[in-house]
Amino acid sequence: MPPLRVGVIGCGYWGPNLVRNFARHPEVKVEAVCDRDLKRAERTGAEYRVPTVAASPDALFGAKQLDLIVVATPTATHFELAKAALSAGTHVLVMKPLTSSGEQAEELAHLAGKRGVLLAVDHTFVFTAAVRKMKELATNGALGELYYFDSVRVNLGLFQRDINVIWDLAPHDISILDFLVGGEPEEILAVGVAHGQSPTENIAYITIKYPNSFLAHVHVNWLAPAKVRQLILGGSKKMVVYDDVQPSEKVKVYDKGVSFQNDADPYKALVSYRSGDMVAPQLDGKEALAVEVDNIVKAVRGKEQLVSDGAAGVRVVHLLEAAQRSIAQGGSPVRLGALAGSAA
Amino acid sequence: MPPLRVGVIGCGYWGPNLVRNFARHPEVKVEAVCDRDLKRAERTGAEYRVPTVAASPDALFGAKQLDLIVVATPTATHFELAKAALSAGTHVLVMKPLTSSGEQAEELAHLAGKRGVLLAVDHTFVFTAAVRKMKELATNGALGELYYFDSVRVNLGLFQRDINVIWDLAPHDISILDFLVGGEPEEILAVGVAHGQSPTENIAYITIKYPNSFLAHVHVNWLAPAKVRQLILGGSKKMVVYDDVQPSEKVKVYDKGVSFQNDADPYKALVSYRSGDMVAPQLDGKEALAVEVDNIVKAVRGKEQLVSDGAAGVRVVHLLEAAQRSIAQGGSPVRLGALAGSAA
Amino acid sequence: MPPLRVGVIGCGYWGPNLVRNFARHPEVKVEAVCDRDLKRAERTGAEYRVPTVAASPDALFGAKQLDLIVVATPTATHFELAKAALSAGTHVLVMKPLTSSGEQAEELAHLAGKRGVLLAVDHTFVFTAAVRKMKELATNGALGELYYFDSVRVNLGLFQRDINVIWDLAPHDISILDFLVGGEPEEILAVGVAHGQSPTENIAYITIKYPNSFLAHVHVNWLAPAKVRQLILGGSKKMVVYDDVQPSEKVKVYDKGVSFQNDADPYKALVSYRSGDMVAPQLDGKEALAVEVDNIVKAVRGKEQLVSDGAAGVRVVHLLEAAQRSIAQGGSPVRLGALAGSAA
Amino acid sequence: MPPLRVGVIGCGYWGPNLVRNFARHPEVKVEAVCDRDLKRAERTGAEYRVPTVAASPDALFGAKQLDLIVVATPTATHFELAKAALSAGTHVLVMKPLTSSGEQAEELAHLAGKRGVLLAVDHTFVFTAAVRKMKELATNGALGELYYFDSVRVNLGLFQRDINVIWDLAPHDISILDFLVGGEPEEILAVGVAHGQSPTENIAYITIKYPNSFLAHVHVNWLAPAKVRQLILGGSKKMVVYDDVQPSEKVKVYDKGVSFQNDADPYKALVSYRSGDMVAPQLDGKEALAVEVDNIVKAVRGKEQLVSDGAAGVRVVHLLEAAQRSIAQGGSPVRLGALAGSAA
Repeated sequence: MPPLRVGVIGCGYWGPNLVRNFARHPEVKVEAVCDRDLKRAERTGAEYRVPTVAASPDALFGAKQLDLIVVATPTATHFELAKAALSAGTHVLVMKPLTSSGEQAEELAHLAGKRGVLLAVDHTFVFTAAVRKMKELATNGALGELYYFDSVRVNLGLFQRDINVIWDLAPHDISILDFLVGGEPEEILAVGVAHGQSPTENIAYITIKYPNSFLAHVHVNWLAPAKVRQLILGGSKKMVVYDDVQPSEKVKVYDKGVSFQNDADPYKALVSYRSGDMVAPQLDGKEALAVEVDNIVKAVRGKEQLVSDGAAGVRVVHLLEAAQRSIAQGGSPVRLGALAGSAA
Repeated sequence: MPPLRVGVIGCGYWGPNLVRNFARHPEVKVEAVCDRDLKRAERTGAEYRVPTVAASPDALFGAKQLDLIVVATPTATHFELAKAALSAGTHVLVMKPLTSSGEQAEELAHLAGKRGVLLAVDHTFVFTAAVRKMKELATNGALGELYYFDSVRVNLGLFQRDINVIWDLAPHDISILDFLVGGEPEEILAVGVAHGQSPTENIAYITIKYPNSFLAHVHVNWLAPAKVRQLILGGSKKMVVYDDVQPSEKVKVYDKGVSFQNDADPYKALVSYRSGDMVAPQLDGKEALAVEVDNIVKAVRGKEQLVSDGAAGVRVVHLLEAAQRSIAQGGSPVRLGALAGSAA
Repeated sequence: MPPLRVGVIGCGYWGPNLVRNFARHPEVKVEAVCDRDLKRAERTGAEYRVPTVAASPDALFGAKQLDLIVVATPTATHFELAKAALSAGTHVLVMKPLTSSGEQAEELAHLAGKRGVLLAVDHTFVFTAAVRKMKELATNGALGELYYFDSVRVNLGLFQRDINVIWDLAPHDISILDFLVGGEPEEILAVGVAHGQSPTENIAYITIKYPNSFLAHVHVNWLAPAKVRQLILGGSKKMVVYDDVQPSEKVKVYDKGVSFQNDADPYKALVSYRSGDMVAPQLDGKEALAVEVDNIVKAVRGKEQLVSDGAAGVRVVHLLEAAQRSIAQGGSPVRLGALAGSAA
Repeated sequence: MPPLRVGVIGCGYWGPNLVRNFARHPEVKVEAVCDRDLKRAERTGAEYRVPTVAASPDALFGAKQLDLIVVATPTATHFELAKAALSAGTHVLVMKPLTSSGEQAEELAHLAGKRGVLLAVDHTFVFTAAVRKMKELATNGALGELYYFDSVRVNLGLFQRDINVIWDLAPHDISILDFLVGGEPEEILAVGVAHGQSPTENIAYITIKYPNSFLAHVHVNWLAPAKVRQLILGGSKKMVVYDDVQPSEKVKVYDKGVSFQNDADPYKALVSYRSGDMVAPQLDGKEALAVEVDNIVKAVRGKEQLVSDGAAGVRVVHLLEAAQRSIAQGGSPVRLGALAGSAA
């Protein structure tokens, strides 16, 4: 089978990582890279011996030889570039977040469907060994009924002028949440503030309500003194903590819980605690991007479902947008029914 | 000067700690202890050689020999007991939270004023060496302009049937916030859920908005797999982290921050990061309760102001009550103007 | 059955903990406590309602009513007090280390045997849930062949004028080693230094060689900036780490190891690594001293073997003495054959 | 000024890092790389656009155009390759340890002197920001009189057939010790064991005695369940801990110590403890290898002294060799006078 021919737009911070992972995949040939800053494109191209190096994405769209185009540019440019690529009939992988608005995200998903090509979204974290292990535990019943998701993603961050802390950091948490928990959230509430001369929010707290008392909360912060990347998924039987700052034992599964024994009289409900072993499962050492690239290649070949597809990208953008709306209205709840429904 | 004569109502979990600290103060004599379970009162009385041991608080109110009565009983009983003690003309110390409602709290504060006695509230954490150090840094300008307060107080907790996780844990965070930051919060938003058969909320997120973009957030949770007691106070110049679970170096001061350089064109605002040394200041080793007891004794003697007085107790209860109201209305913001105003 | 009548000599730092644990045991009655400082004896006696309180141990030896005498005094006095108690025909529990010399330790063990009473040594750590769990793993084969024992016990410590850091701290490590590993060590090597004006060693490294390549190492240090209490027991199948400074998950069992596949040509030996889950087993919450007291009571009743008996005390003192001798001769190895043999 | 022309022998694990750092230095041109496995040389050469790529080092020695030859091959080959390079009149940088024997190390140092070229040794750790900060604190008197050096470097390691754990890991610790403390150690003692079918020692404890009670200790271990890279330098005024596994705050300076007040009667010496703030100084973010390369370039230009020169390489190899000798004689002390003297 001939190799999958890939072109990458954008050789800034993240693009070279994608080029590297595509270049290492045995069934892929990276045919072209481009960047407005031609020097960057040349540097990346030389390292991975890419035949075509260009300053403009037109070089990629024009040539009909590509199977997959990767869009690794700033968020504001995703929509136009992805639309052009999809229109050219190639499969597309777009960095997170898929677009700057739900409307655009839906248009891309719709276009991909119409053209019969794949739209993948680079929600890298869902491909980490840690999150895959959490998914396994959530799916096989080990955690019991899911109770809550709590994520803290804070550090002294790069203030960005065009996007706020939610659009910068929360796509990670929300894509993980979407991947682990699925379902249809009902409402979102968010509070955010901008400090000093910052034109955009640098701290935000997002709460997402689900049916059946499941609750998700995300704390993103560009003004925190120490880096924290911690995620808890609590269930009735066990709870998992994923601490990405740890050099090892990133995932810990706690055999802890509370049992409620029912009684005719609700005030007589008995609560019993359970505290057993903690296990830090061995995680496979695969790089998340390599797993993601392999999934995309297999999906193009028709051998696997895309793990992070356009619909996931749409759902994540809808939630970000709704969080932004809640902030704008002072933290009041925003109903998600229509939004999530449209992505289902 | 004759010693301060103290009586303690309630010898359950916390009462004996208070008896011990009052008994060790050189200017205090613990004259009486009582508990509905007489055995508990006897055990505590024997250990600290307390002359009067009783099953009923009436023994304390009747005898006119006491200067200060300590109420260390379940929250629901605080109001009646404190009212009786204040009415008897003694100074009173009440466990946190002061009462179950803002109205009751205000009545007690009012009564103490009318009778010319002190009403102290046992917000123990504000007397810890860690929080006193944070107060010093917040007050002397070391932190610069205050930006945010973020507190996480979670563990596998004791589910209580009568009060929820907010009334159980958040009095700590809110009293620390009130002590460190002061000021008049404008709005409170809270979301909480009850899981399993639990009749009360076991997880809650509380957001408190202040003028000038200062933001406070509290996460309390009885269903967390590992104990976390972490509080961040972020300022424009430095940020402090207080991690109470650490055996040492509980307080860390980070010389980290962001500077915004203004420009005619707001989109040209320049952001520069600063990252200097981290210092874990040496903390004095005094037990918080001993510091609190000493402040109360000195306040009774007229030598110091009460650090945690009835007004502080009223403010904390008002915030708890408003948080509860926000939960009841699905997380929508509750204006605090009137509430905080009434306590000012 | 009548309660075991216990008397305790020494109400300093450790004595009251023993009084408390004996007093709480349902089959024990603490009949007498004494301390050269009568005030201390009175304070302890009042708290636990002990009938006889004295300044001199003679009060305990004279009265024939005691079944067990506990010696909780400075090491230099252990020998005379324990000898008097054993001679009086009572069972005896002595703090660690049993005595200041191997000769004295053997004399006590011999005397106990002759009088038909029990000699117990308070090697408290072997009764902790953590060490009991390690013993279980070492005994049931989970660890495979034992490879090494490495213990670090350092902090900014209390310099003592009469004993050095080895006699102060290493009894803990050596008694744990003796309990976990048993067997007959062959040689001991130790290096220690005294800094500043210190009259005794404040840092020491002790190495103990066993047959079959098992190696033990102990680092004790009174001049360390942070407290470390960490012990590793490494085996061919698994390795256990016991970190006593952690508030939870003190014991971690690592499913890690190396397999050597033999080959005719030794240079072709193949090494394969294994890295599986890490498990932090749930530990029971019993206080070590309570477990120890219960073992002693049951041993006196003839229902259990003493876990930490005179022979263990002798072995520990012999190793401490041999370590001291190695330090004196500049770190050269000291053969243990005769020493350990005499204790067997 | 023309760029320094550099050739690198060995493109295995470490070589490419050196090529990268030399290639990025503005005053360097990497002219040639070679590796017995030509594919590896080609890969490295392509990435950094190196003109000459070869399978044999002869290509580098023959061409007279090189100023500096880097030897990044297995230890056993260092001597021959470095000797050939020095004989060809080029400056030489050799990976650690310099050679497999002290005799060879001295011969290289002597040859470099005779030929008037530089012999540098890649003791990378002495160029880390952490160790440079420690050196500053040790030199400027902040630590007071130095008391001890304690290093733990353990993990589940790569068993090597040709060298043991001492020759693999301890060059790091010993080169740091030599850099920080200097001076002339008097004696070395080492114990090591080989477990399972391992043909070489996989655990070793090394103790190095200095005049004036300064003591150094190194624990290296290939069989440890968790990675530890911790180094303490204790002084009379302060103590520094360097924990290389931490993602941030790798260096902590503890204002802790003990003061001994002299007295006519030595038994009346008074000990007082001091415990002040802990400071984690901000470290510069420079990569150690970049700092090292810059030092070498400047040394070749005559603008700086070599930080890690042939004499340092000789001293480290002498200590490794002496440690090996002590292991061979069962842990007995080996006098270092002659060895260290010859390197002075």
